[in-house]
Amino acid sequence: MLNDEALDVLFREARTYAAWLDKPVSDDVLRRIYELMKWGPTSANSNPARVVFLRTLRAKERLRPALSPGNVPKTMSAPVTAIVAFDLCFYEKLPKLFPHNPAMRDAFANAPQLVETTAKRNSSLQGAYLMIAARALGLDCGPISGFDNAKVDEEFFSAGKEREGFDQEFFPEGNVRSNFICNLGYGDRSKLFPRSPRLKFEEACTLL
Amino acid sequence: MLNDEALDVLFREARTYAAWLDKPVSDDVLRRIYELMKWGPTSANSNPARVVFLRTLRAKERLRPALSPGNVPKTMSAPVTAIVAFDLCFYEKLPKLFPHNPAMRDAFANAPQLVETTAKRNSSLQGAYLMIAARALGLDCGPISGFDNAKVDEEFFSAGKEREGFDQEFFPEGNVRSNFICNLGYGDRSKLFPRSPRLKFEEACTLL
Repeated sequence: MLNDEALDVLFREARTYAAWLDKPVSDDVLRRIYELMKWGPTSANSNPARVVFLRTLRAKERLRPALSPGNVPKTMSAPVTAIVAFDLCFYEKLPKLFPHNPAMRDAFANAPQLVETTAKRNSSLQGAYLMIAARALGLDCGPISGFDNAKVDEEFFSAGKEREGFDQEFFPEGNVRSNFICNLGYGDRSKLFPRSPRLKFEEACTLL
Repeated sequence: MLNDEALDVLFREARTYAAWLDKPVSDDVLRRIYELMKWGPTSANSNPARVVFLRTLRAKERLRPALSPGNVPKTMSAPVTAIVAFDLCFYEKLPKLFPHNPAMRDAFANAPQLVETTAKRNSSLQGAYLMIAARALGLDCGPISGFDNAKVDEEFFSAGKEREGFDQEFFPEGNVRSNFICNLGYGDRSKLFPRSPRLKFEEACTLL
């Protein structure tokens, strides 16, 4: 059972940030985020999420053309932007991740619609784990879905043809697709707007 | 920054449970889960998730025919099963939830593909917030996607024609669809299998 302070950090006082303090995010803390988020549950332990952490101006500039105009300043000024993506060939890792049932790999390999549904749902879950883990480590988040997924996929995941001038440094097979992006850093509370309301329990939930 | 004990509860020691202690889950704790999870970020504060908490044997029996055989015992024996769903008409609540931009409602109302993508992605995020909130309050989770979504939608969300014999007690408009389900309770650690491995940072993440 978490104490009140922890619940505030994760949920009650946490906010989505668009302005950032001038305080860097270390590679070490990005690795610590992953070492927490990886434990979150996924279907058949499939772990379909793949994450690209953009830390440099050069990397951010590759993202800029895909962003909706309103999302450019907050993203370009964030210390780090995470591209939360999913691998449509995640099932090739199941012999390692789900060793007690070797048939699971083939069940996915022969069901492309199930693969897509599973990859999208579970990479979204893992994206939420990433945000909660980041908050747990003292960071703030700014998740964004207002961008051109196809442009991101072409630029970062070789979804189009091979590109000159950039190493195909990761996920070169063209099976990775972007889900959403998330700015990471230490948020500037002085720039926050008042918080928007949420639905009441009775509007969102039913007890049967 | 959370302490090590809290990180263990949320991530490092948390497990997916299939066996449950004989200890009930109160309605109060279900309400407290929602009062935490509701603060998690969603696109345009859209809050598309809808949750049905099945607490009674009668309610569970309505779910049983939709479950994959392997998921029946763990679900029927769980103190509570949450159906995490999404409302395809979530945008009708945006004038309340996103009051500073009245145009947002129409932007969604005229874009059914964006509505579906947004509802699925964000209800998955909210399902993850539900699981983290449940763990934060001392509960254990057993998420499941091995069930027939269409059967659940017909039975609980009036997705088919009106049914005799059950009140259309909630979400009667037929716009709600199931995403995944999640058993909730106090897990029996003695029945756990050894934990399956996860991907290494270098397998799942890239630093650019």
